[in-house]
Amino acid sequence: MKALVYHGPQTKALDDMPKPVLREATDAIVRITKTTLCVTDLHILKGDVRTVSEGRILGHEGIGVIEEAGTGVSRFHIGDRVLISCITACGMCEYCRRGMCSHCEKGGWILGNTIDGTQAEFVRIPWADTSLHPIPEEADEEAMVMLSDILPTGYECGVLNGCVKPGDTVAIVGAGPVGLAALLTAQFYAPANIIMIDLDDHRLDVAKRLGATRLINSSDGKAVEKAMAMTSGRGVDVAIEAVGVPGTFDICQGIIAPGGHIANVGVHGESVPLHLERLWSQNITITTRLVDAVTTPLLLKTVLSGRLQPRQLITHRFPLSEIMSAYDTFGNAARERALKVIVTSE
Amino acid sequence: MKALVYHGPQTKALDDMPKPVLREATDAIVRITKTTLCVTDLHILKGDVRTVSEGRILGHEGIGVIEEAGTGVSRFHIGDRVLISCITACGMCEYCRRGMCSHCEKGGWILGNTIDGTQAEFVRIPWADTSLHPIPEEADEEAMVMLSDILPTGYECGVLNGCVKPGDTVAIVGAGPVGLAALLTAQFYAPANIIMIDLDDHRLDVAKRLGATRLINSSDGKAVEKAMAMTSGRGVDVAIEAVGVPGTFDICQGIIAPGGHIANVGVHGESVPLHLERLWSQNITITTRLVDAVTTPLLLKTVLSGRLQPRQLITHRFPLSEIMSAYDTFGNAARERALKVIVTSE
Amino acid sequence: MKALVYHGPQTKALDDMPKPVLREATDAIVRITKTTLCVTDLHILKGDVRTVSEGRILGHEGIGVIEEAGTGVSRFHIGDRVLISCITACGMCEYCRRGMCSHCEKGGWILGNTIDGTQAEFVRIPWADTSLHPIPEEADEEAMVMLSDILPTGYECGVLNGCVKPGDTVAIVGAGPVGLAALLTAQFYAPANIIMIDLDDHRLDVAKRLGATRLINSSDGKAVEKAMAMTSGRGVDVAIEAVGVPGTFDICQGIIAPGGHIANVGVHGESVPLHLERLWSQNITITTRLVDAVTTPLLLKTVLSGRLQPRQLITHRFPLSEIMSAYDTFGNAARERALKVIVTSE
Amino acid sequence: MKALVYHGPQTKALDDMPKPVLREATDAIVRITKTTLCVTDLHILKGDVRTVSEGRILGHEGIGVIEEAGTGVSRFHIGDRVLISCITACGMCEYCRRGMCSHCEKGGWILGNTIDGTQAEFVRIPWADTSLHPIPEEADEEAMVMLSDILPTGYECGVLNGCVKPGDTVAIVGAGPVGLAALLTAQFYAPANIIMIDLDDHRLDVAKRLGATRLINSSDGKAVEKAMAMTSGRGVDVAIEAVGVPGTFDICQGIIAPGGHIANVGVHGESVPLHLERLWSQNITITTRLVDAVTTPLLLKTVLSGRLQPRQLITHRFPLSEIMSAYDTFGNAARERALKVIVTSE
Repeated sequence: MKALVYHGPQTKALDDMPKPVLREATDAIVRITKTTLCVTDLHILKGDVRTVSEGRILGHEGIGVIEEAGTGVSRFHIGDRVLISCITACGMCEYCRRGMCSHCEKGGWILGNTIDGTQAEFVRIPWADTSLHPIPEEADEEAMVMLSDILPTGYECGVLNGCVKPGDTVAIVGAGPVGLAALLTAQFYAPANIIMIDLDDHRLDVAKRLGATRLINSSDGKAVEKAMAMTSGRGVDVAIEAVGVPGTFDICQGIIAPGGHIANVGVHGESVPLHLERLWSQNITITTRLVDAVTTPLLLKTVLSGRLQPRQLITHRFPLSEIMSAYDTFGNAARERALKVIVTSE
Repeated sequence: MKALVYHGPQTKALDDMPKPVLREATDAIVRITKTTLCVTDLHILKGDVRTVSEGRILGHEGIGVIEEAGTGVSRFHIGDRVLISCITACGMCEYCRRGMCSHCEKGGWILGNTIDGTQAEFVRIPWADTSLHPIPEEADEEAMVMLSDILPTGYECGVLNGCVKPGDTVAIVGAGPVGLAALLTAQFYAPANIIMIDLDDHRLDVAKRLGATRLINSSDGKAVEKAMAMTSGRGVDVAIEAVGVPGTFDICQGIIAPGGHIANVGVHGESVPLHLERLWSQNITITTRLVDAVTTPLLLKTVLSGRLQPRQLITHRFPLSEIMSAYDTFGNAARERALKVIVTSE
Repeated sequence: MKALVYHGPQTKALDDMPKPVLREATDAIVRITKTTLCVTDLHILKGDVRTVSEGRILGHEGIGVIEEAGTGVSRFHIGDRVLISCITACGMCEYCRRGMCSHCEKGGWILGNTIDGTQAEFVRIPWADTSLHPIPEEADEEAMVMLSDILPTGYECGVLNGCVKPGDTVAIVGAGPVGLAALLTAQFYAPANIIMIDLDDHRLDVAKRLGATRLINSSDGKAVEKAMAMTSGRGVDVAIEAVGVPGTFDICQGIIAPGGHIANVGVHGESVPLHLERLWSQNITITTRLVDAVTTPLLLKTVLSGRLQPRQLITHRFPLSEIMSAYDTFGNAARERALKVIVTSE
Repeated sequence: MKALVYHGPQTKALDDMPKPVLREATDAIVRITKTTLCVTDLHILKGDVRTVSEGRILGHEGIGVIEEAGTGVSRFHIGDRVLISCITACGMCEYCRRGMCSHCEKGGWILGNTIDGTQAEFVRIPWADTSLHPIPEEADEEAMVMLSDILPTGYECGVLNGCVKPGDTVAIVGAGPVGLAALLTAQFYAPANIIMIDLDDHRLDVAKRLGATRLINSSDGKAVEKAMAMTSGRGVDVAIEAVGVPGTFDICQGIIAPGGHIANVGVHGESVPLHLERLWSQNITITTRLVDAVTTPLLLKTVLSGRLQPRQLITHRFPLSEIMSAYDTFGNAARERALKVIVTSE
């Protein structure tokens, strides 16, 4: 089968690979119909993710059809349409029981990381019963792909951890796909204001269209002053960090109101100075989270009811045979004005 | 001054009454600019509320201007525009500290009940610092009147107690003003479906306009069957009772899904059979609540940001001199298609 | 094998029955080492539980050793010591994901109800990976049996649903095994007072020994007056109903303070009058729950650390061959001063 | 009157000062009967707290008797015994309404900081109705002094923010008075293990006596390794930082389990490196908090019921005339084996 394979830093290829086979009774093989690319894939290709070895098929998002199911799989049958969660969950370990499947003792984020992923014609999904979701007949397939990772990430790590509530002033730092996913799902809770902060005016325009009430282009280094001015010096109730560098985390520290929540979503490569000399008395809460993908059923309901419209995040579409071009486009997201890119099987 | 006075069951008059004076250092006198009528006022006029004695000025909602303030009042000054909470809160008793101001040891619902109320040119407000809210300059005054009672009631007793969350299916039984306030504020939380249940098609039409996704006219006694059919036999996640009679509470018991919440808002005059022989194992939660009005600042933010538009609940306007006609209209709400009625000082 | 079999109302026998076999890949066969009797078993024997058919092996509690495991079972192996949960959980349905395994679409309370149970030499456990718990080496076996049902029931349905918190005054109505389990676990939260209410002085003495601070013998019908006097007329913060008849639920309604929680634990056979004419304004919360047994891992930690000592609930021990006598003793609990009865394999 | 006055860094004296007088209608004058010293007072004396000007009477804890009350004070009368909260709360601003009185717009921590404090014969308490608590007749006076600051601080900033729950493993870094207050109140929630970490063996011994289950002397720089070994490499569920330097915060980061809570209690003078490069994916929560003192009524109930025994924290007693010696003792806490020091009026 065709698959996008990582061959070490800066190197990838669309290779012929053997079709995956069942290994455990609880596995399923899924024929991929649609997948997508994630910023994490770009990090892997830079060589930043040590757990990914050469020869690995990338990808942890997608939808497809059950091709084969192990004897221990009871919830899915051949031919069922399924949504693949970016988080593989055994459903029985202490962490899964606590709803913290990101730290599943046997799963977690393994697809396209420590086992082969979804940017291929077929993928093996361990613990299929608890790592796949049935796709209802009336569901839009492209919207479903957004539920594999990006929407639960923005929602769980940003919005839920940030405790967004009606009337709040929320700032989201970073208007990339995950920041926009947080923007869409923050609106579930009727905040009074959502301030979007980014370096790119195009992305800020998109954010405005998707519901941001105020925009800050932070390229002049004055995001904190601007946000404080917008809030009459009070600061924001919730600051969602969706970039992953010290500077953006620092903006969050600078604009958070007493009693506020800083919800970190970004993947960080280095430590950041935490200003406890000022914050120790500010009654703030800082959270980190790898998405647990436990809210996918809830998000699915909001998509089916029309309250959430994730197609708004999709800008480009490619067949699997052109996935190398898809990477070019996604890798130059600013220039290409790319957000999420759908890759479709032929 | 002119005031609407209760003279015993079925009897009321617009009388000349003495202007109120400060009694305690923590009192303020407010000149009323707008007030409104509440279903509770109709109950009082029927003689159903024993705590109201003859000669009482009715009314527990309204906005106005500080006319006079006691020496212990520090937050408000003469000329300030204020929103009067239907709940008078001392701010220091055990219940106020817990945010349960409805049971304030010195206050609670006393306006137009055990002390004179707001359907008058002036009103004395005890514990003014904690029972009034400042009105921001840009605020729409009619919208503010809706924040005295009806919106916090629908929101606190119905939506918050019912724990409405994204993707939920919510049923609201009773499309009167309070049910509609619950309908408006339930939408803060992006439920997938809101089923409105009432006997009156006009009110159901209003509900549809205000965001209900499904309507049930329950006059045929088949509300339970219909709601169960709409939810594929599963029932609703949240049932909000906004009427106050056994039959409507019974609908809630009949349609609640396992794990669901029944939030009682209605004022009941008799006990209702609780079907524990079936519900004991259904993991449900039933709540009751007299509004605490602790969410008024939050609701104010949602109004100022435009997320909540309470003017939609206002159907009629009268000057104080015609408050007797206002009562006629409000007392025949179905025929007059009346929801909330604004009464304005001249 | 030997097993206690239900032969219709009032009739049971210790019969020779075929040893259970694996049916699904996710099943395990457990050799029972210790089991116990539950009040629910007595209800079944009265013919009150319609879902139990003649020929059914009773029992939903116990510990044992894995005798055989299906190919889909990954967490347990032959020879592992296991604790059997009274709730069978598939771990993948909507209810299991929400932590409401009592309503598992494929499981729930089925052991000794719709499938054969644990009062036998062997039992088949469906969904073994999510319905069994490993027993740590150092654990006391008799204590473990108490974790199958009674302790999670008292804790989840009574203490957690009742939201017991430090400084609270808690009343528990019913000092049977489940009420005592609530008493033991309520003490996790440092309530200031725990008032135990029962008809039996012996059980009240036991309650005192297990931590109750005040006792009320309710046989004179004056429990409400007494509890109100003990709380200076204020009522209790939490009332736990652990009997299941209208009279005891009524005591809870009579003694609950404004803002309080009534947590129903009892199994009710008929509806009860809910006094909404008084309670509608009292800001109370009433909960019902069939135990989900999701707190068993937490409870296990408290047992291992010595904070919880469930052996205190055990009064009698019998070998399986004398389980008919065990039923006699347990069925005459008051006379025999029986709480929990351990039945041991030979 | 006699009062302990700050005269600039390193300088203090027991001076004759004018007796305070009422300034606002909401003030009360309290005759101090018992007060105590706080580590914060030592920080002030080092010159670390910029808001404290020369000539300020120190002290923010204590109990006393109402000497005089303004016309706006309604809850207290001359002769009433009162507990002084370290946090002055107006009770009406946005922060007070949210229960975040530490950030009261007109109060907060002002006693012995921006206004004169309690280490004197008399003190003026602004917003007396919401900043004092009545002392019940049966209460032990010395225990009450511990409720002014240290117990709410350990409980709110450490235990509540840390979300301690039954079965948890908790680490407390710092066995000074506040760390010990966290230790005492953590036991409200039946954690399985409490690991106390400090440099001083005497303090660790005290911690053991007060309920710590494991002790780590961190003077060898191996606290992280030791705590990880004690938890089989898993880490702790809750880490409470009760020192206020980068090294101790770093221990917390090193030992926190995935999904865990780091509750900062310590007052920090510099920023600390936050290891987001590792923690971004660990689903942890970090909180900071200046005590709000909103739990004093709850703590009072636990003291009256005997569940909490704060006298255990008191090691020394002095009359006010010897407060300079009290400071000597408290300032050499390790050598003097001092925890809390009671200062009594003659």
